[in-house]
Amino acid sequence: LTTDFGTADWFVGTMKGVIATLAPRAMVVDITHEIPAGDVLAGAFALAASCPFFPKGTIHVAVIDPGVGSTRKAIAVETGGQFFVGPDNGVLSFALRRQKVGTIRWLQNEDYFLTPVSRTFHGRNIFAPVAAHLSRGVRLSRLGPAVKGLIRLPWPEPARDRGKLQGEIICLDRFGNAITNLELKSGAQGEGRFVRCEVHGAGRWIIPLHSHYQAVEPGRAVALIGSLGLLELAINAGSAEKKLGLKRGMRVDLLGL
Amino acid sequence: LTTDFGTADWFVGTMKGVIATLAPRAMVVDITHEIPAGDVLAGAFALAASCPFFPKGTIHVAVIDPGVGSTRKAIAVETGGQFFVGPDNGVLSFALRRQKVGTIRWLQNEDYFLTPVSRTFHGRNIFAPVAAHLSRGVRLSRLGPAVKGLIRLPWPEPARDRGKLQGEIICLDRFGNAITNLELKSGAQGEGRFVRCEVHGAGRWIIPLHSHYQAVEPGRAVALIGSLGLLELAINAGSAEKKLGLKRGMRVDLLGL
Amino acid sequence: LTTDFGTADWFVGTMKGVIATLAPRAMVVDITHEIPAGDVLAGAFALAASCPFFPKGTIHVAVIDPGVGSTRKAIAVETGGQFFVGPDNGVLSFALRRQKVGTIRWLQNEDYFLTPVSRTFHGRNIFAPVAAHLSRGVRLSRLGPAVKGLIRLPWPEPARDRGKLQGEIICLDRFGNAITNLELKSGAQGEGRFVRCEVHGAGRWIIPLHSHYQAVEPGRAVALIGSLGLLELAINAGSAEKKLGLKRGMRVDLLGL
Repeated sequence: LTTDFGTADWFVGTMKGVIATLAPRAMVVDITHEIPAGDVLAGAFALAASCPFFPKGTIHVAVIDPGVGSTRKAIAVETGGQFFVGPDNGVLSFALRRQKVGTIRWLQNEDYFLTPVSRTFHGRNIFAPVAAHLSRGVRLSRLGPAVKGLIRLPWPEPARDRGKLQGEIICLDRFGNAITNLELKSGAQGEGRFVRCEVHGAGRWIIPLHSHYQAVEPGRAVALIGSLGLLELAINAGSAEKKLGLKRGMRVDLLGL
Repeated sequence: LTTDFGTADWFVGTMKGVIATLAPRAMVVDITHEIPAGDVLAGAFALAASCPFFPKGTIHVAVIDPGVGSTRKAIAVETGGQFFVGPDNGVLSFALRRQKVGTIRWLQNEDYFLTPVSRTFHGRNIFAPVAAHLSRGVRLSRLGPAVKGLIRLPWPEPARDRGKLQGEIICLDRFGNAITNLELKSGAQGEGRFVRCEVHGAGRWIIPLHSHYQAVEPGRAVALIGSLGLLELAINAGSAEKKLGLKRGMRVDLLGL
Repeated sequence: LTTDFGTADWFVGTMKGVIATLAPRAMVVDITHEIPAGDVLAGAFALAASCPFFPKGTIHVAVIDPGVGSTRKAIAVETGGQFFVGPDNGVLSFALRRQKVGTIRWLQNEDYFLTPVSRTFHGRNIFAPVAAHLSRGVRLSRLGPAVKGLIRLPWPEPARDRGKLQGEIICLDRFGNAITNLELKSGAQGEGRFVRCEVHGAGRWIIPLHSHYQAVEPGRAVALIGSLGLLELAINAGSAEKKLGLKRGMRVDLLGL
C-alpha cells in the first residue's frame, strides 16, 4: 500500500479491514501513507523505488487520488509478475516506466467492489477489495474492460551538454538528501574526486564524490550514488535540504563528471 | 489496535511482541496510534469509523487511557461477532452506539494478564494479552465478572429546526475535511445544489453540494456526503480546516437542504 | 525492526519487500521508525525497552546507521534465544547490557546479502536479507567470522550519595514523560510521599510519588515508577517535557527517597 492517507485517521486501517475480510491470509505491507496530500508525483516515485524489491505476485495498491469520484479511471495492470492497482492519474507510471505493460483493465466490475461505493474513498470500496480479490486468484480480465494506455507523468530525462550533466531534484528524503534524476553507475565517479555542482535557485558548490555519507566530515556536503542508482546531494549528519536550501524540481548542473 | 501511543516510542511494538508471544498466528492491524494524547473522543470516532469493515472474529483493542492505573475499569465486550477491549472511559462507546451489546466483562482475571502489571501501561500488561487470549479462543466469561453498562460518550445528535439542519463538526481528517454529525443519504442532496452553511465561530458560506471533491475548482469549498455517510465540508485540493478556520465541536447550521 | 528511516519514504517498505521475497512467512513487527536521524542512543533504548516482550526466535533488526558504508562493522549476535542484527555502533548494546552475549558474527558472507550492495542502504541489502535468512534457519556461524566484543554505549549508572539519588533523563516519550535511569522497585516508594527533585538546568520541585498519572490533578507533576521499572517525571494530562523544560541527558537529583 502506498497512499497519502496519513496514519492519524482510520483510512488505512479500514482498507486493511476490507482486505482481511476478503483475503484473510493476505500479507499487507505499507510502503508509506505519508505522501503529501494529492502529491501524485511523490507517490509515483515511492512506488517505483520500492516495487522492484517485492516478490512476484505482489499486488501494489497506490492511492494518491485527488480526483476520486470524478471521471478519472480506476485501473489495474500486470507486469513482470506483479500487479499494480490505483487511479489512472500517473501514480503508477514511474513504476511501469521501463516495464512492458500488459493489458490495462478499467475497474468496472462491481462484483469485486465493496458496495455501495463511496465517491470519496475508493481506497476502501474499490482498490482494497480489488487487490484482495486479485490476491485470491481472480483474473485481471474479470475486473473490467481493456483500455489502451495509461496516464504517464513525464519522467524528467537528464541531458548531457558537452561536459555538463543536467538533471533535477526529484525527491528529498527523510534525511534531507536530495535525490536527482542523474543515473550513474556506482564506482563510475572515482572516490574523492571533486565536481562543480550548481543547483539553480540554491547555489553552486565544489563537492567531493564519495560512496557513503561518512566519507566527509559531519556537516560537509557530499555527492554520491544512492541506493536507487541516482546521484544524491547530501550532508553528512545533516540535511542538505535545509542547509543548502534544496527543493524538488530544482535544476542540477554537474561539471567534471 | 487503536491507541494514542504514537509511533515514535516502543509502546505499540511492545504490545505486538506480547501478542506475538501468546498468539503467534494472530494478524495485528493498526487503525491508528496517532490519536492525540488522551483524546478519548477522537479514539472512539476512529474505532467506530473502521470497525464495521473488519471481519467477524476481529478483536478491537482501543487504548486511549489517560486514567490508566486509576479506578477506571478495564473491560471487554462482544457484539456482532466482534470483540472490543479497552478501558471503560467511553473509547469503545461510539463503536457500540447502535449495537446490541452483550455481557460486559470487567477484566480482573490475572491469568490472562502479563504479570506483574505495570500501573502505567495496561496496553502491554492487560489489553494486549487479553486480546491475544481471546484470539486463541478463551471465552469472554473467563476474563472477569459481568458488569452492567459501560461509560458512554454523548454522541452529538443533530437536530432539525424548520428548514435548518443543526449539527457539529466531530472530526477533522488528514486532508482538513471537516466531518459533521449530519447523517445524510448519498444522492439525497441533489448534485450541484447550493446550501447556506454557517459554522458558528468560523463564518457563513453559500456552498454547493456535490458527491466528490473535484466537482469544484481547486481551492473552492464543497459540501458532500463522505465515506461514513456524514456531511463533510471540504476544499478541493486544500484544507477546509485551515482555510475556513474549522475546529472540532463547532456548531454547523445548514439551510436549504 | 527499529530504524531511523521514518515512514514518509519507501525505505522500510523496501526492507519488508526484501524480507517477503526471502522469507514469505516471516512476521515483521515495527518497533519504531521514528528514531531521530542518526540518534543511536535513542534507538538503543527503544530496542532495549521492547525486546524482552518478544518471543524466543525473534530477530531484532536495528538500523540507526549514520556510518553506513564506512568501516563500521555489520554484526549479528544471538542471546537468550533471540537474534540481534545491526551496525556495530552501539545500537544493540543496551538490549544486550545484561545478557550473556554469545559469539558475535561480522556480516561478511555475501551469499546472504542482496547484491550488489548499496553503500548507503545496508538495511535493504544486508540487514533485511540476513534477518530473513536467519528466520529461515540459517545458522549464525554462516554469516561471517567471529569477532570479539561489540561497541557499547555507556549506560549512565545512577549513584547514591548519602540520601541523594543521582541519575539522569534518558528518554522523553510521546506524552512528554521524562524517563530516568533510576531503577526503583514498584511500591518501594510509598504512595503519596513527597520527594525533592532537582533537574539540573530545569528547576527544583517537591513532587509526590504515585503509581499512576491520574493520582494527581490534571496539570500537576508526579513521579512514578514507569513500565520499565524506571523513575519517571510526568504531568497528569500534560507534558513534563514542555511544562518543566526537561531534556535528555539532564541530571536528576532526588532527595527523600
